[in-house]
This record gives sequence, structure tokens and C-alpha cells, in this order.
Amino acid sequence: MATVALTLKEIEELARATLSKNGCDERNTEALTRTIVTAERDGSVSHGLFRLPGYVASLNSGKVKGDADPKVVRKTPAIISVDGDGGYAPLALEVGVPALADAATEIGVAVMAATNVHHFAALWPETEALAERGLIGMACVCYKRMVAPAGGKKALWGTNPISFAWPRPGKDPMVYDMATSAMAMGEIQVAARDGHAVPPGTGLGPNGEETTDPALIEKGVLLPFGGYKGSAIAMMVELLAAGAVGEQFSFEAHASDPPDGGPPRGGEFLLAMSPELMAGPGWEEHCESFFAEYEGMEGTRMPGARRDANRLDSGPRHINEALVEKIRSL
Amino acid sequence: MATVALTLKEIEELARATLSKNGCDERNTEALTRTIVTAERDGSVSHGLFRLPGYVASLNSGKVKGDADPKVVRKTPAIISVDGDGGYAPLALEVGVPALADAATEIGVAVMAATNVHHFAALWPETEALAERGLIGMACVCYKRMVAPAGGKKALWGTNPISFAWPRPGKDPMVYDMATSAMAMGEIQVAARDGHAVPPGTGLGPNGEETTDPALIEKGVLLPFGGYKGSAIAMMVELLAAGAVGEQFSFEAHASDPPDGGPPRGGEFLLAMSPELMAGPGWEEHCESFFAEYEGMEGTRMPGARRDANRLDSGPRHINEALVEKIRSL
Repeated sequence: MATVALTLKEIEELARATLSKNGCDERNTEALTRTIVTAERDGSVSHGLFRLPGYVASLNSGKVKGDADPKVVRKTPAIISVDGDGGYAPLALEVGVPALADAATEIGVAVMAATNVHHFAALWPETEALAERGLIGMACVCYKRMVAPAGGKKALWGTNPISFAWPRPGKDPMVYDMATSAMAMGEIQVAARDGHAVPPGTGLGPNGEETTDPALIEKGVLLPFGGYKGSAIAMMVELLAAGAVGEQFSFEAHASDPPDGGPPRGGEFLLAMSPELMAGPGWEEHCESFFAEYEGMEGTRMPGARRDANRLDSGPRHINEALVEKIRSL
Repeated sequence: MATVALTLKEIEELARATLSKNGCDERNTEALTRTIVTAERDGSVSHGLFRLPGYVASLNSGKVKGDADPKVVRKTPAIISVDGDGGYAPLALEVGVPALADAATEIGVAVMAATNVHHFAALWPETEALAERGLIGMACVCYKRMVAPAGGKKALWGTNPISFAWPRPGKDPMVYDMATSAMAMGEIQVAARDGHAVPPGTGLGPNGEETTDPALIEKGVLLPFGGYKGSAIAMMVELLAAGAVGEQFSFEAHASDPPDGGPPRGGEFLLAMSPELMAGPGWEEHCESFFAEYEGMEGTRMPGARRDANRLDSGPRHINEALVEKIRSL
């Protein structure tokens, strides 16, 4: 793959120029640009510049508002309600997360229920932001029908990611962010291109048959990770991301979404909790004794450690050349 | 296996008599008896009379207080703090869950942080109780070192169950309760006895080697369900059950617990959320449209449906004869 070396500053300028040329106002441009740069900085490349053509497509089709003005209401002491005004999620999160963190810091537990947003990025930036304020964070979104429940043969929910973050004052927080499907559709496509079989339980073929052939799974459905138990977790994510916040389930988004290359309208569930208020003083040392056991065990790795390591690299990022050309043409 | 047919009334009387003869006061006897009868009623037999010898063992050793007097404090508008006073969990839950439900009904989101309890039962009774009050429920406990994190070869956490419940007004709630280990140790023991191999990924042998031989896994460690992703979920459960509430991690309980056959001291994390307050009016119909899609799909089954079906059976339960004799001798 031919690549182009771009500094983080150049990535930032490319994203900003592209978004502002394509209908984003300044606030939305800046929030989206930060999201893209953060992803490239941390090596989360499938959520960086790679997403920019999709962002632009849905701005141009009119599906997503480039001048969205999200509204935050503290509906109850424990519920932060965010109406994203039909824009992309980053600006809604930039206004909603501080209000959520304030509420959780004050009374110990709070939920941000976001609606009317288009989420096309990773979830770890928002849970990490909570952990950096000393809070436990948990985030869920759903998407469009791509994954069959365990036992079923037809898609019902999306790859439905869940992110969880734990604060470690003075250290990088523990943060993970994972699809609840066995594999991402992009990985299936790569395996099909390269002619590699995928593990049993990854997906089903077009007739609902079990297969390890990625070319058949591309025409069929994905399965949840971990069989029935993973399917139960995926269902929890779907119910929290849609049912609990009052936004579209994946099957509804699938039916209503104009397929322009960008993400459907949806919700986000974001939970914040204060260990200081729940467990009381001394929680940091107590939890660090657990992390010491975990990190001291041969073969384990701390979730998020790879991102933390990438972040230390201030050098240029090597971006797919064709992608950069495509973005410059937008 | 020789069995004895006992009506639910006879099970209740047997549990009550055994507990009150062995040092439980009336409130603790009644709470534990309800827990045992509910488990037998719903076919959750590993949490019914099967646990009674263990309950009695820790009463007799003095590890668990039969006259525990749990204290409930609403520490903040969103945190219900329950000190179990060193007793079994059922009485702590009977006093804590209504306070938690009241808080979540009032402000939308609340956590019960229980400490100083000994939990030896299923988690679904408490999440189901929340769902019956129109609330979403999520519960986590940990236990003693039995499960290695993905990549590791030594046990760090317990089989760490998670339960999740969703309210369905006018219908049985959706409720699941599952260990985050690939299999329960009891299932490994049965497979070893019967000479059946277990699936790859279930556990490791005594030298940390991969194996499908349950006799080797009995001497080694269990693994989380679903590889790295399931391991991340199991770690979340451990952190919530211990770190977030300020109670022992599994490795701490393992080190401090006198092995008398009963459960170690630990905590419980119980989250309650109101879809009425988060999503607003109309949430029931919206969520029922999702459940209709799920239930309409061939091959799926609703979590908890088996328990709901068992509950309709008012006939006698068939209890292991040796177990009944053992209990009568206590």
C-alpha cells in the first residue's frame, strides 16, 4: 500500500479544510477535526481520515447538518439529555460530556442520553474523557442490521460497540472499546481478499449456513463474539443505545437511513460514576493493587496500552495515498 | 440419581427449619428461605437447596453472622450504600433494593453499593425485582480466584457473573444472569466425571497449557468466555463488584477467606435506571417493537424464558435424595 507521511498538524489542517469546505460551521468543524486527529494520533486509523469521505458524503446529501447546535438539559439530577440537532456526535459530546461529568462528580452516578446524533467514530474518546476526570465511564451505540443474535440466521443489530474506562489517577486510565460482533465487517473483507479462512462462529453464509469462508460471510451475516453470552452483551448494548435513550434501534436505522456512505441517525448511552463517592477514600490504592496483580501476570496486556504507546509518537503518520488524494478532491 | 419429590411448601419448610436451627434469626431465615425457594421454583437448582449446606457451614464456623442487621444509607441522591453487617446477601438486598428502586424512579439513575455481604445465590432475583418496578437493572459480583485473564495462565478473578434485566410492562421482563467464565467449575467436574472433552478455550491445565481435557482443567484454571472480548467484560465485572463499591477483589477474598464451604465476604454492584425518565413516554412500545423482531426470528430464545416457564409449574420439585438427607442431618 502506497502511503503519504503527514504530521498530526497536517492531518488537522486537511481535516479542517475539507470539513469547512463541505458545509460544516466552525464549531462542528473543530469538534470533528479533533476527533479525527485524536484517532490518527492513537493509531485508531479506521476512525481517523478513513471516515472523512463518509462524513462529507452525509453533509452533501443533507442527511447530517453541518451547523447542528446541540442542546444539553439536565433533565433530572442524574440524567443529562443531549439533543444533537441532527449533527455529528463530536460536538454533541463536547457539550454533553462536561455536564455529565459534573453531575457524576456531584452525586456519584449519572447518564448522558444523547439522541439525534450521527456517530461515526470510536467510543473511547468519551469514556477516556470521563476517566481523566476521575470517573468510571461506559458507552454504548448501535448502528444498522449486520449481526444475527446467537441461534438466529438473520441480522438484527449492529456491530454494537461497548467502551469501558477506569480512572487511574497519575497513570493512563484503563480504557477499552470493542465491537460485540466476533469480527468487524472490514476484517471479513480483508480475509476474503487475502483468501484466509476465519474462525468458526465469526459469521453465517447467505443461507444462514455455518461457514469459515469470509467471502460467504460478506454475503451473509456476522455473529456476536462469544456465542450466547456475547449475544447477551450485544443485546444489552442495543437496548441501552436505543431503548434506554429513546432513539432508533439498528433495525429501525437500517430501514430509515438513506445509504449515502455516512452513518445513520442514532443515540448514545454514556454512564459516568464516581468511585470516590461510591467506594469512598482509598479507592485508588485499592484498585491499583488489582491492576498490579493483572499487570504482573505473564501474557496479559492492559486494554488501551497500544493507544497510549502510539500517543507518545510525535512523528508523522503514514496515511493511505489513495485516501489522501480522495480527500483532497472533496 | 435418586430424587425425592418435595412441594415448594415443603422446600420452604425444610430451608426455614434448617436455617433457624443453625443460628439464623427470623429476618435472615426468612430472606434466605425466600431466596432458596425462588431458585427451586424457577429451576435454578444450583442456587437452591444445593447451597444450604454451604450456608450452614459458614454460620457454624462463625464466618457469616446469622443475626446480621444490614444498614441502608442514601449517601447521595444517586447512591444507596448498604452495609450487610457480615451476613448473607438476601436480607441486605431485601432492605437495599426498594431504596435503590425509589431513588432510580425519582431521579432516573442510581447505584446500590453493597459491602460486607456474603453472596451465594443467583443475581437475577435482584435485577428482576428492579425490572418488575419498571427499571433497567444490572448486577455484578466477584468471588475467588478461579479464572485467568485472556493471555494469562494463572487465575485472577472469579467466575464473575453479570445479570441484566429489562422491564416489559404487562409481560415477563427480559432477564439474564451469566458467569463470565466460559463454563462453570461444576460443569467441568461433570464433564471430567463423564469423560467428555470440553471446547477449546474453556480452561488451561495445571501448567498453563491449552487443553480440552476437563480433568486437567480441574487442576488448572478456567478461562473467560469469548477470548479477549469476554475477558474485558469479566474485568469490568470485577472492577464494578469490588473496586467501585469498595470491597474485596477476588484475589483478596481468596487470600482472606477461611475455606469452610461457604462464600467469602464481598460486595455487590447494582445499577438501576428508569427508561421512563431517560427515554420518556412511549419507551415501552418502542422497545416492544425490538423484542417483536427478536422473538420473531427463528432460532432465537428470550433470555430468562426457561425460568419463566418453570415458574408456572406448581407441582413438586425433584431434589437429589442424598442432598435432602444431608440437609435433614444438619
